[in-house]
Amino acid sequence: MAGLTLASSPLVQADEGQWQPHQLPQLKAELKRIGIAIPAEKLADLSKHPMTAIVSLGGCSASFVSPTGLVVTNHHCAYGAVQRNSSAEKNYIANGFLAKSPAQELPAGPDSRMYITDKVENVTEQIMRGITPSMSGKQRHEHVENRIKNLIAECEQADGKDQAYRCSIPSFHRGLEYYRIRQMMIRDVRLVYAPSDKIGNYGGEVDNFEWPRHTGDYAFLRAYVGKDGRPADPSPDNVPYQSKDFLTVSAQGLKNGDPILLAGYPGLTSRYKLPEEIRYARDVSYPARAFESRSDISVIEAATAGNAEGKVRYASVVKGIQNRLKKTEGLLAGFARKDIAAIKDAQDAEFRSWVAQHYADKDFLKDLDAVIASDMALTEEEFAYSVASNSDLLKSARTLYRLALENQKPDAERKAGFQQRDLPFITARLSRLEQSYLPNVDQARFTAGLQRYNKLAAKTHPQGLDVLLPLPESVSAFYPMTELGDTVKRLAWLKKDAAEFRASQDAFIHLAVKLHDIGMQLEDRRQEVDGNLERVIPKYMQAVIAWKQSQGKPVYPDANSTLRVTYGTVAPYSPRDGVTKGPFTTVEGIVEKHTGKTPFIAPDNLLAAIKDKRYGVYKDSVLGTVPVNFLSSADTTGGNSGSAVLNKNGELIGLNFDSTYESITKDWYFDSAITRAIHVDIRYMLWVMQEVDHADNLLKEMRIRYPAK
Amino acid sequence: MAGLTLASSPLVQADEGQWQPHQLPQLKAELKRIGIAIPAEKLADLSKHPMTAIVSLGGCSASFVSPTGLVVTNHHCAYGAVQRNSSAEKNYIANGFLAKSPAQELPAGPDSRMYITDKVENVTEQIMRGITPSMSGKQRHEHVENRIKNLIAECEQADGKDQAYRCSIPSFHRGLEYYRIRQMMIRDVRLVYAPSDKIGNYGGEVDNFEWPRHTGDYAFLRAYVGKDGRPADPSPDNVPYQSKDFLTVSAQGLKNGDPILLAGYPGLTSRYKLPEEIRYARDVSYPARAFESRSDISVIEAATAGNAEGKVRYASVVKGIQNRLKKTEGLLAGFARKDIAAIKDAQDAEFRSWVAQHYADKDFLKDLDAVIASDMALTEEEFAYSVASNSDLLKSARTLYRLALENQKPDAERKAGFQQRDLPFITARLSRLEQSYLPNVDQARFTAGLQRYNKLAAKTHPQGLDVLLPLPESVSAFYPMTELGDTVKRLAWLKKDAAEFRASQDAFIHLAVKLHDIGMQLEDRRQEVDGNLERVIPKYMQAVIAWKQSQGKPVYPDANSTLRVTYGTVAPYSPRDGVTKGPFTTVEGIVEKHTGKTPFIAPDNLLAAIKDKRYGVYKDSVLGTVPVNFLSSADTTGGNSGSAVLNKNGELIGLNFDSTYESITKDWYFDSAITRAIHVDIRYMLWVMQEVDHADNLLKEMRIRYPAK
Repeated sequence: MAGLTLASSPLVQADEGQWQPHQLPQLKAELKRIGIAIPAEKLADLSKHPMTAIVSLGGCSASFVSPTGLVVTNHHCAYGAVQRNSSAEKNYIANGFLAKSPAQELPAGPDSRMYITDKVENVTEQIMRGITPSMSGKQRHEHVENRIKNLIAECEQADGKDQAYRCSIPSFHRGLEYYRIRQMMIRDVRLVYAPSDKIGNYGGEVDNFEWPRHTGDYAFLRAYVGKDGRPADPSPDNVPYQSKDFLTVSAQGLKNGDPILLAGYPGLTSRYKLPEEIRYARDVSYPARAFESRSDISVIEAATAGNAEGKVRYASVVKGIQNRLKKTEGLLAGFARKDIAAIKDAQDAEFRSWVAQHYADKDFLKDLDAVIASDMALTEEEFAYSVASNSDLLKSARTLYRLALENQKPDAERKAGFQQRDLPFITARLSRLEQSYLPNVDQARFTAGLQRYNKLAAKTHPQGLDVLLPLPESVSAFYPMTELGDTVKRLAWLKKDAAEFRASQDAFIHLAVKLHDIGMQLEDRRQEVDGNLERVIPKYMQAVIAWKQSQGKPVYPDANSTLRVTYGTVAPYSPRDGVTKGPFTTVEGIVEKHTGKTPFIAPDNLLAAIKDKRYGVYKDSVLGTVPVNFLSSADTTGGNSGSAVLNKNGELIGLNFDSTYESITKDWYFDSAITRAIHVDIRYMLWVMQEVDHADNLLKEMRIRYPAK
Repeated sequence: MAGLTLASSPLVQADEGQWQPHQLPQLKAELKRIGIAIPAEKLADLSKHPMTAIVSLGGCSASFVSPTGLVVTNHHCAYGAVQRNSSAEKNYIANGFLAKSPAQELPAGPDSRMYITDKVENVTEQIMRGITPSMSGKQRHEHVENRIKNLIAECEQADGKDQAYRCSIPSFHRGLEYYRIRQMMIRDVRLVYAPSDKIGNYGGEVDNFEWPRHTGDYAFLRAYVGKDGRPADPSPDNVPYQSKDFLTVSAQGLKNGDPILLAGYPGLTSRYKLPEEIRYARDVSYPARAFESRSDISVIEAATAGNAEGKVRYASVVKGIQNRLKKTEGLLAGFARKDIAAIKDAQDAEFRSWVAQHYADKDFLKDLDAVIASDMALTEEEFAYSVASNSDLLKSARTLYRLALENQKPDAERKAGFQQRDLPFITARLSRLEQSYLPNVDQARFTAGLQRYNKLAAKTHPQGLDVLLPLPESVSAFYPMTELGDTVKRLAWLKKDAAEFRASQDAFIHLAVKLHDIGMQLEDRRQEVDGNLERVIPKYMQAVIAWKQSQGKPVYPDANSTLRVTYGTVAPYSPRDGVTKGPFTTVEGIVEKHTGKTPFIAPDNLLAAIKDKRYGVYKDSVLGTVPVNFLSSADTTGGNSGSAVLNKNGELIGLNFDSTYESITKDWYFDSAITRAIHVDIRYMLWVMQEVDHADNLLKEMRIRYPAK
């Protein structure tokens, strides 16, 4: 009934933009117009509240909500931590987990990290220095890569060698600018509280990307540091991190049309792609990837049919592929619904005519088009190579051999991703395979992948590859002749040198060595293309920025996993004529969906609290009940999971966790009429904590503003 | 996008009630509260505007919209008229039909009638006079039936014998009151204008009962009378009827929350049924009927497979069964969604406790429960008998034999439905069979019906029936031995006497004669039960009315195909948490749904007008485009098709034509939160007339108020 009680539906704002914090002062008027009270200058300052409270989990976003390192994020972002602490006896997935005191908090896992951005410097000038017009694409790319490695090393070593900080230099505007970002990296992360997945994942895959939504997608972690206050390896001696800053939680609620801010680490968008790149994605690349995902899923399903253990081992692999597939299918459906390429054609024509009027040298546009064409052609070959390599053992062997080769060089000269600093991540990845590998399934996937590769257009086959690949029917002989399926033996290869690889009779090591040159050729060509892109795209983006500036509009860079701020309003949307969705769902909707069958099993104590209407202070005065999820027009993407949703005063009023199906194409084109992000209303979280899970200790630890009586 | 532009969503009114016009003055305060400006007393007066403009088509509702007999109703109500005038060369169904002058208007068909209610008298006292407590149910029922026949005869003969008026005496509140209703009956009805079914039936069966809806479900007829101004048989000499009164059309539009009135002839509701009657319908009767419909459809489909002519002949039969089935399934889904029986239990308990406090003699409630139980048991047997008689030839034979038997009596003593006055209707029904009969299909239906009958619980088999019924496998022998499949020969039996029937060797006539006694036994028992119901229900209804009166609430009688007025507001609804539907759809939604495949083929000239945004004065200022359909909270049911939807000043602003799927249970229980009627917005009708069909002559003939510039 939520929809019926909307007080009003204001005109929807065009809330496109994932802004770098330092850009916000340019948007002062806009922020004021929608009703944001925190000064833009304050939001821009990474050393001030509220930005100092925003945390990255690497792939997810989060925020501090207490002075002693308590962090709130999505349930699905903490799922791995819940899973690794669960067993048949202590089923924290099904029953939830609550530490009643810090002593009961559980290790989130060896790969768990928290990153707190503390310094951002524009290093474009240092990166670009020494680049000459005569450089080839590969030379240019290597130059940039080397500069980046040096500047990162300088940054990480400046503060001692204890891994307290991690630095990175992502490019912005596809190579126009480079910023060096220093993040404190917490290595001892613990699980504090997660509701049952009957709350945290209510609706499961069925409701993924859907609205109406009724998911309590939240969980709590805590950052721990050494007694000296610096990040440290996990240890019982560590102490809760004294967070410089944290967010106040507001239970005062919000209503349709209210302004919101959202801060987090969006992963990747493609908003400045050319029309031909969109057509390539729509007509070639996405359909091929969707086919590949569907094929791979059915191969895994066939190979694990009637094998309960096999199903469990590959459950998360299949879930990952399904998730990608649903997104790809959503993108294709979105492209079919709206001709985004045609919209971009119009924008591009307008842009090119503006360039024609204002630029003496317009050759960069021809150059751009040519480089983009070479990029698409190379991408096809890379895709074909990946189809032919659909084996976890082959991928592991390839990583290990490459590492052995890179290890021959001094650390600073090694390929990024294979340096000393990357070793823990490589090791973790190679260890994790133990949980999701079975020889017969890997064999089936590898075989089917090779069969699919053989059917791809000949022009997409990397030159020389076909003769090196095994015949699909001969793959079965590989598995008795490899020890890479054994985790201890697999990890032992981390220590071996290149000569040992070359001498090995292990079938996959042997294949990886054999394929190495082809892989390197593709990589060299990728460097050449990327170097060319890095040369030409910045010119293009500079022209785009100038063009937008001439219209008085600032330009945000595509998402690149760095800290961004977006804003919008609480807003419904119309998926089709005569139907309005959102902006709120309510706890009554949980009962409506409850079937008693997965994924719609609401816990009994939750159902009882709803039946008794024990809503307390969390009851919304307009809705007359407790809201669960809400929609906003904020601009988000993958990586924004767990992002803090703030009210006009910068208080936490929700967590971002998904977006609607109709929004999926937003990574390419932000259609403000239908793009909506889905958030957990903080009142639902607090209400469950109080009425269902009795997390009184955490409610006490947080600073919560309750509605006036 | 309609939903997004709602200015506001007011609290929904509880707009239950299909009021007899004379009851409206009791609702003065309520009408004023929602904003109706016409005085209630004026609405109550059948001799005054606007009530004098409201027309019944017998099964559908309509209204006069010009001083020369122009009537507007639904496309689906005029469908038969369009169909009978269509041919392969003149396909008015696909292309629409427009008479540019009265001379071009086409006969709507021999069965077409218009009824204009002109007098309503309470005759309860005359009906009841002479009833004694000692009478059996059957005696009581026959008494009532005879009184009704006499009072009808008196009424119809008072004005001469030219069939100008038709009288009826329906019971109200299930026998508490009887009103004699006199209606002028127009017998020369002509088709004036119907849009293409690509507009008038856009969405077809797929969208039936659904929202969002985009159907231009309207058409125009005209009433013709003799030169003396009195109703006359169809004749080229007839002239357009000078309608005493007609509705002004308002193109000024309406918006969410606006008050509306709706006047028409709702067919049948069951709002005062007891909880056990609801449980019987939900658990026994509807599931059995749904099974019967599904079985019958599959038998017809199998029997017409590969037979194009057979499919055409049975198309409307199947459509009728499907429509009933969808409604039955909707009712069952509604009952599953909301425990209406439990709601009624609570109301019933409250009522019975009130009765216990205020009535000395409470035995009538026990009596009521017993009679209701006997009614349900008898209904089961009647249903079983109908399952065993699933042949159009058997039904025809039964009607014909019964008519022969009734013809032996003086007209006044004949069973209602078999009097002289009913003969034209019987003849029409028996003629129409020609269009929807094939021997092999009838044989398959009859055989399958007998097979299903044999599987019904033994206690539902009427006593003595089993031995008289043919074996399912022997039915095939009937068809070579009957002449009833031939229309001329079938109609010839209308003139034969009972002895000829008894002597006949025709297989179906023979079977009808053989089954006659069983049928009469069921009828006698029905009369006994109905008489008992007529005795006890009025006492119950009287108590209900007294109980409601004690709460200051007037009580409307269940719908019984008599003229009623309902009111409400333009209002969206929420089918589930987080989703809002309506209240408007727009022409853009037509484009959204257009697939180029039936039933979603919008005509090219309509699509062009939308593309060019040629909206003119019909553009809604809030929606920014032309609205197509809208929802209101008015209380409607079958029979309300074509009902005039009026604004606060009594101007025509829409036509009722359907209700949403979630509303289907409203015949049992009016749930104001989800019950919504679906209307054509008059602006869409006028816009199509102007921009697409160029019906300028009609736009000129009507009195239309346009928005101020």
